[in-house]
Amino acid sequence: MKKAVLIPDSFKGTLSSKEICSIIQKSINNHYPQCQVVSIPVADGGEGSVDCFLEALGGQKIFETVKNPYFEDMVSYYGILSDCETAIIEMASCAGLPLVEDRKDPTKTTTYGVGQLILSAARKGCKKIIVGLGGSSTNDGGCGAAVATGVKFYNHEGNEFIPVGGTLIDIASIDLSQQFELIKNVEIITMCDIDNPMYGKTGAAHIFGPQKGADALMVEELDNGLINLCEVIKNCLGKYLDNIPGSGAAGAMGAGMIAFFNSKLQMGIETVLDTVSFDDVITDCDMIFTGEGKMDTQSLRGKVVIGVAKRAKKKNIPVTVIAGGVEENIKEAYEMGVTSVFTINRLPQDFQISRLNSRENLSETIDNILRLIKSINNN
Amino acid sequence: MKKAVLIPDSFKGTLSSKEICSIIQKSINNHYPQCQVVSIPVADGGEGSVDCFLEALGGQKIFETVKNPYFEDMVSYYGILSDCETAIIEMASCAGLPLVEDRKDPTKTTTYGVGQLILSAARKGCKKIIVGLGGSSTNDGGCGAAVATGVKFYNHEGNEFIPVGGTLIDIASIDLSQQFELIKNVEIITMCDIDNPMYGKTGAAHIFGPQKGADALMVEELDNGLINLCEVIKNCLGKYLDNIPGSGAAGAMGAGMIAFFNSKLQMGIETVLDTVSFDDVITDCDMIFTGEGKMDTQSLRGKVVIGVAKRAKKKNIPVTVIAGGVEENIKEAYEMGVTSVFTINRLPQDFQISRLNSRENLSETIDNILRLIKSINNN
Repeated sequence: MKKAVLIPDSFKGTLSSKEICSIIQKSINNHYPQCQVVSIPVADGGEGSVDCFLEALGGQKIFETVKNPYFEDMVSYYGILSDCETAIIEMASCAGLPLVEDRKDPTKTTTYGVGQLILSAARKGCKKIIVGLGGSSTNDGGCGAAVATGVKFYNHEGNEFIPVGGTLIDIASIDLSQQFELIKNVEIITMCDIDNPMYGKTGAAHIFGPQKGADALMVEELDNGLINLCEVIKNCLGKYLDNIPGSGAAGAMGAGMIAFFNSKLQMGIETVLDTVSFDDVITDCDMIFTGEGKMDTQSLRGKVVIGVAKRAKKKNIPVTVIAGGVEENIKEAYEMGVTSVFTINRLPQDFQISRLNSRENLSETIDNILRLIKSINNN
Repeated sequence: MKKAVLIPDSFKGTLSSKEICSIIQKSINNHYPQCQVVSIPVADGGEGSVDCFLEALGGQKIFETVKNPYFEDMVSYYGILSDCETAIIEMASCAGLPLVEDRKDPTKTTTYGVGQLILSAARKGCKKIIVGLGGSSTNDGGCGAAVATGVKFYNHEGNEFIPVGGTLIDIASIDLSQQFELIKNVEIITMCDIDNPMYGKTGAAHIFGPQKGADALMVEELDNGLINLCEVIKNCLGKYLDNIPGSGAAGAMGAGMIAFFNSKLQMGIETVLDTVSFDDVITDCDMIFTGEGKMDTQSLRGKVVIGVAKRAKKKNIPVTVIAGGVEENIKEAYEMGVTSVFTINRLPQDFQISRLNSRENLSETIDNILRLIKSINNN
């Protein structure tokens, strides 16, 4: 093995993508000291995404004072890759749930800081801005972020205001004409791995409201607000967001990214693969190692493993998957480019026990995979 | 892959060695239709050993009417391999615990039938007889088997009798002079995978008596009988069996095999490897697949996996191990010839749940190992 590419998803609740890369890399170095190892830790847009991109591609982390979910100043961050043209923003960095601690209230929280970060990146000359959704404390449909970039929202009295979850219902009209030109000239891509629509029973408020602190009554209030926002966007901006998959992501930030930033939503892994020029990276590699916590029919929908496998297949590069668990019905994965799938459960133990040994189990598993590969190579 | 050799131990309580061979063979046939597959199901001497040997080497199964543990006639069996010179006997076939059902009483049961099978094989011209210990209902120190081949036991009144567990204490002398000449000219090898001595706290009665139906009082009675037998063997036959590892196997049948049949005790796997001429079989093979239910420090003591690995190492053939579980502290196994160890736990589940899916889990695991091997071979 002369070159290996590592691009695992995190094992939810046990190991981060970066930790997994590090364990696999160590094992490869041990068995193949001469092997070139390219590590591409993957994040889905949530917390840690900026670090993942910087890890994979180099660049700098910019720290900036912006508004937190309660309009208070905080020091947040984003990344500018070494091409100096691409910025990575994770909305969780200034609108995340951990930031509100015991003040969870999605009727009051804002994504204003996210807009400030976008503006900052644009002002530094970035031509492409990747915004990762996920882990938000908000339900403002991205209105806060929009205001930070010059978008105006008016209520029925014609007064300008900054809508939050609880006041989305008051929006009567939206004006994009004063949004900074800078923003309009930048390509904004939104990483979004979920399918939920903006409103309704499977929408942002109903599905994600409760974990942000909403009770049943508040969920209805938020949902009505989102229905109004959708309607006003339709009337003022001519965009029909009613059934767009992913528009409900991160308190309907998905919808806001489309409506106010002219962004497209795409799967996190596709964004990562494009950004790292994956097709070029793997050209001369002997083996790709990827993985995820649990491989099941959901995985086939285009998460990390399948995203990677599809590209590898075109170049005929073998893809070894390491997973915490594998359901039986994943035969299609092989057709999609997966070579083989191994699990890390060295003992038959319930997840509640085995999760404590994830690190050692992964380490033992990759060690033995490499031992096998070596024995074949040598014969 | 042009030739593969399969030689797994059983996964205790879930899959037999034969079943494992069949699952692996099917998968190899699927991925490498041209590959020659040699299946050597392994038994440890207990129930199923005869079938395993016949499976691996061909031959015929001989059915013979002999005494069951209660001296009643039953149809038992043994195997004669295709060389027509080697017989395989499993003592469980006529002295096994399942045969006594609700009549468990190790003070009364006999190995007489085992002696009859040995005699039958010798009469059919076998020059080598392999006797597998394990799964017995007896605690007669092999005296019953000895009597069936002409050995005489006398009590203190000078009366001849057939000792059983409860009457070992009455043995005053032993006479081998009338044992059939036929038996003396045959090489008898005893398969025995345990280390227990004949008597004492770790001896046959204390450790295995209870599962054969003995209560605390009976255990003492049996143990005293074995102490007496050991003493008389010393006095009459000049053999010192006090601390011989394995002499306590199968109700001290191990001791009887040494004393009355001049047999050596050896690990089951060594017997299998010798009998199948393993060193020759693997000469031109690309990969050996072995495995066991749980790989741990016990395994390193010379059970199937390590027995196989040691021989493979001398010929530099890779050994892939598939296990139900692997403990962490098996690093030595790699030095002993094991290439890599994979586990079949496709999901993090407790053994009580996962055992129900052993077949599918094994099948998925070998399938993915072969997919990986194939992807390496092709590159």
